[in-house]
Amino acid sequence: MSLLDDLHWRYAAKHLNGTPVPQADVDYIVEAARMAPSSSGLQPFQVLVIRNADLIAQLSHCVYGNQQLQNCSPLLVFAAWDDYTEERVNEFFSRQNAERNLPDSVTDAYRTRLLEHVLHAGETENHHHAAKQAFLSAMCAMMAAAERRIDCTPMEGFEADKVDAILNLRAQGLRSTLLLPLGYRDEHNDWLLHMKKVRRSDDTFAIRLD
Amino acid sequence: MSLLDDLHWRYAAKHLNGTPVPQADVDYIVEAARMAPSSSGLQPFQVLVIRNADLIAQLSHCVYGNQQLQNCSPLLVFAAWDDYTEERVNEFFSRQNAERNLPDSVTDAYRTRLLEHVLHAGETENHHHAAKQAFLSAMCAMMAAAERRIDCTPMEGFEADKVDAILNLRAQGLRSTLLLPLGYRDEHNDWLLHMKKVRRSDDTFAIRLD
Repeated sequence: MSLLDDLHWRYAAKHLNGTPVPQADVDYIVEAARMAPSSSGLQPFQVLVIRNADLIAQLSHCVYGNQQLQNCSPLLVFAAWDDYTEERVNEFFSRQNAERNLPDSVTDAYRTRLLEHVLHAGETENHHHAAKQAFLSAMCAMMAAAERRIDCTPMEGFEADKVDAILNLRAQGLRSTLLLPLGYRDEHNDWLLHMKKVRRSDDTFAIRLD
Repeated sequence: MSLLDDLHWRYAAKHLNGTPVPQADVDYIVEAARMAPSSSGLQPFQVLVIRNADLIAQLSHCVYGNQQLQNCSPLLVFAAWDDYTEERVNEFFSRQNAERNLPDSVTDAYRTRLLEHVLHAGETENHHHAAKQAFLSAMCAMMAAAERRIDCTPMEGFEADKVDAILNLRAQGLRSTLLLPLGYRDEHNDWLLHMKKVRRSDDTFAIRLD
């Protein structure tokens, strides 16, 4: 099966059937998320892998009545850095250079330019930038799940302040940006399963400049 | 090969060798981008597929001296909606309902809530939201390229105002958010090719709550 087959197979399941995803598959999905590219390589986010039923039950009240969290296991939460800081940026370059057996001097010019940029951009812009990197990672997780015929539903419509409080994210310099419940489609009760997948036509999606 | 194999194979090539990507492969990559999920299904972005050498040459001056654009073909530009508008949102729901043979009344409550939200959120938040959807799509394009052993380099560090002007994006209600030059790695001249791929360790990337 190709990636495109997997993209056609997947959909944003509205009802899951309650079967938990085996740990080996979860590990594969999280590993794909970990290997995703990110701007400058910073990986400015964390992925929470939540099996705890009590926590999931609390979080299920933050999604405006949607059902997916009630029968998922695990729930992934992509939590992006609230801001870029000198400490966070420096930690990355030190670690990268150490793993490559290079002196810090080789990245000093780039690091200095990057720091100037992010310290000037401000917290709101920086958080959005970090969240975009989390979205690249979340898409890798979604594709890894689809490859193994595991369902998941990317959810952005949730009460982020409540989620952040339940998971104590703000104290860790994080803000929830995407929820990704994992599980298996409830074939008997999901109204969306047999609906046509709707996408813009190729000629209204792509603009070709030859 | 698995998705994870593809993720290990890919890297952000710094030098491409000038060989253009065959049209059938480009079509596959753009099709993967088109099939990506997006919030509410809105697909709030366009993908420009640029083969025009003059345009690419102009754009190559907007990337702070990076080399990838000089030997890519094509260049993809992910351009996100500058804002959500009632017209754009309504067009989507009308089209979706028509394709599913459903009356517009079935989505009126959801559409009304969504419009209230986006018209209140404001242009900056809405553009960031749209750009995140473009990033999901770009990740699908990157994975589709990697599956076929085609290189690409996601670039966020560019002079967006200049790119927007060259491509006349603002007049179309769009803003450039990610450049993705496609091509083949220059194995002899890319200093990054043999560098260790650095990612946070699993235990510092994932937070497990069992």
